[in-house]
Amino acid sequence: MKPINVGLLGTGTVGGGTFKVLQRNSEEISRRAGCTIRIAVVADTDIVRAKGVAGDAARVTADAFEVVNDPQIDVVVELIGGYTIAKDLMLKAIANGKHVVTANKALLALHGNEIFSAARKQGVMVAFEAAVGGGIPIIKSLREGLTANRIEWIAGIINGTSNFILSEMRAKGAAFADVLKEAQSKGYAEADPTFDIEGVDAAHKLAIMAAIGFGIPVQFDKAYVEGISKLAQQDIRYAEELGYRIKLLGIAKRRAAGFELRVHPTLIPTGQLIANVEGVMNAILVKGDAVGQTMYYGAGAGAEPTASAVVADLVDVARALTADPEHRVPHLAFQHDQLSNVPILPMGEVETSYYLRLRVADKAGVLADITRILADQAISIEALVQKPHDGEEHVDIILLTHLTREKKIDAAILSIEALPVVSGKITRIRMEALQ
Amino acid sequence: MKPINVGLLGTGTVGGGTFKVLQRNSEEISRRAGCTIRIAVVADTDIVRAKGVAGDAARVTADAFEVVNDPQIDVVVELIGGYTIAKDLMLKAIANGKHVVTANKALLALHGNEIFSAARKQGVMVAFEAAVGGGIPIIKSLREGLTANRIEWIAGIINGTSNFILSEMRAKGAAFADVLKEAQSKGYAEADPTFDIEGVDAAHKLAIMAAIGFGIPVQFDKAYVEGISKLAQQDIRYAEELGYRIKLLGIAKRRAAGFELRVHPTLIPTGQLIANVEGVMNAILVKGDAVGQTMYYGAGAGAEPTASAVVADLVDVARALTADPEHRVPHLAFQHDQLSNVPILPMGEVETSYYLRLRVADKAGVLADITRILADQAISIEALVQKPHDGEEHVDIILLTHLTREKKIDAAILSIEALPVVSGKITRIRMEALQ
Repeated sequence: MKPINVGLLGTGTVGGGTFKVLQRNSEEISRRAGCTIRIAVVADTDIVRAKGVAGDAARVTADAFEVVNDPQIDVVVELIGGYTIAKDLMLKAIANGKHVVTANKALLALHGNEIFSAARKQGVMVAFEAAVGGGIPIIKSLREGLTANRIEWIAGIINGTSNFILSEMRAKGAAFADVLKEAQSKGYAEADPTFDIEGVDAAHKLAIMAAIGFGIPVQFDKAYVEGISKLAQQDIRYAEELGYRIKLLGIAKRRAAGFELRVHPTLIPTGQLIANVEGVMNAILVKGDAVGQTMYYGAGAGAEPTASAVVADLVDVARALTADPEHRVPHLAFQHDQLSNVPILPMGEVETSYYLRLRVADKAGVLADITRILADQAISIEALVQKPHDGEEHVDIILLTHLTREKKIDAAILSIEALPVVSGKITRIRMEALQ
Repeated sequence: MKPINVGLLGTGTVGGGTFKVLQRNSEEISRRAGCTIRIAVVADTDIVRAKGVAGDAARVTADAFEVVNDPQIDVVVELIGGYTIAKDLMLKAIANGKHVVTANKALLALHGNEIFSAARKQGVMVAFEAAVGGGIPIIKSLREGLTANRIEWIAGIINGTSNFILSEMRAKGAAFADVLKEAQSKGYAEADPTFDIEGVDAAHKLAIMAAIGFGIPVQFDKAYVEGISKLAQQDIRYAEELGYRIKLLGIAKRRAAGFELRVHPTLIPTGQLIANVEGVMNAILVKGDAVGQTMYYGAGAGAEPTASAVVADLVDVARALTADPEHRVPHLAFQHDQLSNVPILPMGEVETSYYLRLRVADKAGVLADITRILADQAISIEALVQKPHDGEEHVDIILLTHLTREKKIDAAILSIEALPVVSGKITRIRMEALQ
């Protein structure tokens, strides 16, 4: 199968991440896409940065217009950002019959209707998963996964910077200005943080999601936008006392008379899952009339999470271009002749940590016996708690182990159960930190 | 555009839900799909039930084989379940060149490789979003949304019945057997609950997700399966004291030597978002090397949530059949000539509830003045808390309102701020229950 030739515009954080992910995972990506996706040329006015990203693997140019006019290029990935040059480049690429992948939410929020209209006339795809929620496949979920539903509302934590600031204000009792400085020093907030902290970035993303969910044009200009810069520490505290957490939410809601479209700090009941999304993470809650509530959670920004969405769009384009419709997406995601025969491991080889509960005689030396058996199997102990066992001469011992292999814990359990001081069977439950 | 003719096999819970959702949302679904999706014939051996579902809107037959052999039918939706007749029907439909949509995880877990191979040879689609996680678009996310990633592991709460039982055991301190009875009386567990409580259903779903995530054949027979029926109340309590919650997880993990594939009760740190997924809800956590952790949450079972996935698959099939590849999925999910011009409401018309903080003189009659103003605007109060304001003759009053309109709260705030006993501006933050 002929490779897909990609022209990459912009080699900043996301551009660099996209190049890296495509190179590192090229084998798996080809197995999924059914063809090779190859960045043929990289454009950046900062030619030194572009060469640093591309190395010897792609041609480098300072002239992005050369790329969108290059007949060898099938897909243009626009990661420059902003409204002016990015728009001209995108429209030129479309006019030249090229498919476009972009992460540019600001451009789509303001000029999306014009861009999609141009693309439709030319019969090209404009894919923009990376524009909302970083690597979370929220655009695909709304556009394809929830098509059965009349969408009732969408409510999302869709700006990582402001969620980080709110999380820190709550956890540390710190003032907005101090946390903003911390966020800037960690690279979570830009030198000019206005778009993030004043809700503009969230409103861009909200306008795009509302258009997809409700079947309306992109209407960023109609959104109500209020940020977090005026939020006082005491309100976060009072809200907490009343059972609420304050989050910057983007809310789009269907009403009989029209649609609500608004971004503002919002009190949410602490028991709600989305109220517990902390730090730079994003989450989008969608209410459909058939499915009820679904939620999508993940990193909303950053080089590789955003690159994950850019590359997923490239695979979508590649699948649409290279396969007949019936074979567009393979049944199991990988092309059928590209399945791997790496084996499933037997349970004895599984690695995890363990919770063990034992009932033992309340005597000296018992713990020494047990811990020696564990040490013999090279199993190390994370925690050990002794619990009185009601009305008998026994105690319960709860043991948490560090990571080990199932066959070692099996052997240890057999030996421990054989000790005369141990009564009955040991209860064993596996533990996962999920990190 | 010619309508897509669907043959529906099985009119139980999910079959009935699918019929209902397709009818209720037919207008929005057509706007998204670009054509009408029409259930032309419904098959069920229980002909009375089938007629109850179909009414006058579709032909009814007791013979499902008649449907899979009907040249008028484009897509067969298999919602019968089980391994035997469902398999014969599906293979016959495929042999006849029909696309298939199914929710049958058991069948795919055991015979998926054979079915996908037959479908590939015939060039037809087999779509199965409804087989895992009910209405959560987890199959699409794994198969299309995360294609950039080397998937490192998948860990999911993918059986609602067992998650409901574990949630109740923890919340009420009840024993497994008692909660199981409660679940059966609520319809959350079947008369024979074995597949749910012994982890078999979760292992079916896990085997399917692992195949998609890792690019391996479906290997249910290699999975380790352990359920929750032997879980003791005291272990749930001890785990909680140590900072963990016990969930039935399906875990698929990439290791150097092979893949782990296992279902068992698992201790998870309470701080993890997925540890807080309660009741019949499902959630799947996926770790990719580029995107990091993403999580997908929603109802994992039930008539309309599962129907949501079935219908989304039908829209996918319709889009693939009726459009040229470039126009397969519209840029904004709805066909471009089907966007709605329903307006975005001005902020004054938005309905929400409010948190208000006021600083007032510590005098008699102040609350009466404030509450009268709110009553004049028909704003009702959910909570009112008075907080001492350090070292002054003032107090802070925190007010939570019930649902009202923004223009009413604006008017009330103006009037309250005009009271001589009120100092400075009122802080107003919006509240959402997200229910």
